[in-house]
Amino acid sequence: MRKKAVVLLSGGVDSSTVLAIAGSEGFEVYALTFDYGQRNKIEIGSAQEVAKANRVKEHRIFNIDLRSIGGSALTGDIEVPKQKEGQGVPVTYVPARNTIFLAIALAWAEVLGAKDIFIGANAMDYSGYPDCRPEYIDAFEKLAGLGTVSGKVRIRAPLMHMTKAEIVARGMSLGVDYSMTQSCYDPASDGSACGECESCRLRIRGFEEAGVTDPVRYSIN
Amino acid sequence: MRKKAVVLLSGGVDSSTVLAIAGSEGFEVYALTFDYGQRNKIEIGSAQEVAKANRVKEHRIFNIDLRSIGGSALTGDIEVPKQKEGQGVPVTYVPARNTIFLAIALAWAEVLGAKDIFIGANAMDYSGYPDCRPEYIDAFEKLAGLGTVSGKVRIRAPLMHMTKAEIVARGMSLGVDYSMTQSCYDPASDGSACGECESCRLRIRGFEEAGVTDPVRYSIN
Repeated sequence: MRKKAVVLLSGGVDSSTVLAIAGSEGFEVYALTFDYGQRNKIEIGSAQEVAKANRVKEHRIFNIDLRSIGGSALTGDIEVPKQKEGQGVPVTYVPARNTIFLAIALAWAEVLGAKDIFIGANAMDYSGYPDCRPEYIDAFEKLAGLGTVSGKVRIRAPLMHMTKAEIVARGMSLGVDYSMTQSCYDPASDGSACGECESCRLRIRGFEEAGVTDPVRYSIN
Repeated sequence: MRKKAVVLLSGGVDSSTVLAIAGSEGFEVYALTFDYGQRNKIEIGSAQEVAKANRVKEHRIFNIDLRSIGGSALTGDIEVPKQKEGQGVPVTYVPARNTIFLAIALAWAEVLGAKDIFIGANAMDYSGYPDCRPEYIDAFEKLAGLGTVSGKVRIRAPLMHMTKAEIVARGMSLGVDYSMTQSCYDPASDGSACGECESCRLRIRGFEEAGVTDPVRYSIN
């Protein structure tokens, strides 16, 4: 029987690459996407396309309304900034989001008997998010070991120390179709990416540095 | 300004006692109850009564459907046992429940600026649940410190080493009205407790040992 893994899949570049990595390691993949009241609903459709293209064993979309908690530009009424912010934590930070997502992934992993949970956390490009640091991932792994019956779960963050260009290059080598992916925090109603938010900028630079043409459509030229 | 605390409130004996303890320590209390698809919906109404009686600053009921994850008698089709189970983890264990609940409490605490989260975890009577152990609570506190911007959150589990009798005695001294509380895993449609499930048994024995009359109604005599 193949080993099972739960993969957190947002539909962006990072998690889509992680999904391909998990598949390349021979895991039977259970993809988990959150409909959490995010501004960018299009990414859920992207996640569905990516999951289907990767022939995952199961793709589950879990509803959890984090808007009621508030505190973020991604779920609330705060505007998504159209340029790089200064130092510190970006307003797009969603309080405890990775803790919540990993906790639900952990519950599902326990029910499935999966011992591996994959997440696209990355410390290089997102150093402003505290819940993307390696020591955070280690702490969650320790918690998972103590808080479950099965007792041993690995939290896999294979992109942790990669630049966006390295992630894109890795994904290309695994045949990831990035035309399906969505990165924009605040896409236009026709689905095109704004090209100006922090996430778009990171993506654009990553593709440029990787020497790969970014297949998504942008509102700006 | 009073210090704020988020208190996980299920509407049972333990969490209602914890709510009173947080209040007695001078905290401005933000109570958090989960509608997670539990078999016992009555406990949500109990939580509302308890929160109101304690004049909490805010009581929030957060919807998260854990039935879709499965794996427990409390949310699924597995029957709740009417007697004490053997060794090991009870079928009423909900995978990663405390991790999920604490994660959401953490998000709310971060938005509120609360540095304390109270939980009724208890290692004495529920030794079968891995996510009620002191080392688990410590691990979550460490995780919370790493995964949030504020960086320092205390996870308070004041009942950890108390017997049910000690909890009841403590609650009585703080004026907790246990007639509002609900403990039964599987109450009858008229709201009366079954008196036979593990949770009822623990409660009944706790009140007996504390020398206090249990004010709730049981289906059995």
